[in-house]
Amino acid sequence: MQIDVLTLFPPMFDGVFGSSILGKAREKGLVTFRTVNFRDYANNKHNTVDDYPFGGGGGMVLKPEPIFAAVEDLTSGSDIRPRVILMCPQGETFTQRKAEELAGERHLMFVCGHYEGYDERIREHLITDELSIGDYVLTGGELPAMVVIDSVVRLLPGVLGNEQSAVTDSFSTGLLEYPHYTRPAQFRDWTIPDVLISGHHENIAKWRREQSLLRTLRRRPDLLDKADLTPKERDWLRRMRDRETDEGPG
Amino acid sequence: MQIDVLTLFPPMFDGVFGSSILGKAREKGLVTFRTVNFRDYANNKHNTVDDYPFGGGGGMVLKPEPIFAAVEDLTSGSDIRPRVILMCPQGETFTQRKAEELAGERHLMFVCGHYEGYDERIREHLITDELSIGDYVLTGGELPAMVVIDSVVRLLPGVLGNEQSAVTDSFSTGLLEYPHYTRPAQFRDWTIPDVLISGHHENIAKWRREQSLLRTLRRRPDLLDKADLTPKERDWLRRMRDRETDEGPG
Repeated sequence: MQIDVLTLFPPMFDGVFGSSILGKAREKGLVTFRTVNFRDYANNKHNTVDDYPFGGGGGMVLKPEPIFAAVEDLTSGSDIRPRVILMCPQGETFTQRKAEELAGERHLMFVCGHYEGYDERIREHLITDELSIGDYVLTGGELPAMVVIDSVVRLLPGVLGNEQSAVTDSFSTGLLEYPHYTRPAQFRDWTIPDVLISGHHENIAKWRREQSLLRTLRRRPDLLDKADLTPKERDWLRRMRDRETDEGPG
Repeated sequence: MQIDVLTLFPPMFDGVFGSSILGKAREKGLVTFRTVNFRDYANNKHNTVDDYPFGGGGGMVLKPEPIFAAVEDLTSGSDIRPRVILMCPQGETFTQRKAEELAGERHLMFVCGHYEGYDERIREHLITDELSIGDYVLTGGELPAMVVIDSVVRLLPGVLGNEQSAVTDSFSTGLLEYPHYTRPAQFRDWTIPDVLISGHHENIAKWRREQSLLRTLRRRPDLLDKADLTPKERDWLRRMRDRETDEGPG
């Protein structure tokens, strides 16, 4: 997969593209990263990439020419039509489903603005996807692009080892994970649940499933609607919810 | 503000902490960043920070000792009780409100795991906040920690210039932003809306507000419930929604 990032801050990406899973995917030749400073495409005397908004008001707006020129230069001579992704608060909320969709592409380009707005013609005539990673204000599109890239690259075949894949699998049940414990069995005053050293695999599996259900009920009840549960589990959860409401503080 | 990050991959943070707003905040002395490799606190022969889970199953689990030792070392001799934040999929979903809350603190510590799970005793006895930045699977807590740090630091007094603050203000209306345009007025075949060069400020303000409402209606109707709207605007939106439903494709 080819991944291009258009940004005014290419050095932000060095540490991230060089480390851990992304660094290894690159070493294995499974992905190629290119960070491009679109100021190099400004094509005016002062290398200006932004300008004042028509109609007045505060803030600056990224001009269309440098972004169009950069995208067209990076795709010239290629038969593959890339997904050109704008990271912005107005975008569709990024989800694991979207990561899976993007992992099927051969070429992704990320356009990262930085405090400025984008000239609307970039959105209308160049961008294929607008993405937001969540409802909070960030300084630029760089960190969101890294987040999307990490979630996509780790889905590419051959990128993750078996050990790491296991973690993804547990997430795919749609429930939050059960509590984990490792050695020492006693750390300071705190011991681990007896069931985990009982050697009774069925009881361990039951305990973990219950903990996973309870944690999801307490922290993210919104996930339960879409989770893959048996009728018996739904019934048990209803009783647990009633009991916790009855016994709650106050 | 003091910000500490416990991670097995300190170099991931170099480019991000050195660039843009975070770099400038550091230069101005408004924030101090410290990245600490908690492997340095492993205190065993092979510098092991993870181990197999009690009860079996795939994946590795971060041991409690190195994380406790690192947090306690970094806070020893200080009167300020830090918020100790775990980045994990099981956490509370991060929002702008949470960013504002954290911006009032003097010391934040981020604990970043990497594919492994965390021993539950870390959660129970050391962590003050568990945060998730969204419903997608990432390789580790490093990118989420950068996202939270960026959103918090930009709220600290003195960090943003006026120009950049304006962008934040427009977000705080609870609506998506209206379209922006800058020079050239004609780019290729695409011109800008006439109203923006009319010089009629009232019409421009009206157009922008309507565009902002419409974009929110089309892309993020969930935001409208909490947005600050006049009764007239709510009425207008109802009519627009009906019209778009009637005139929709098919």
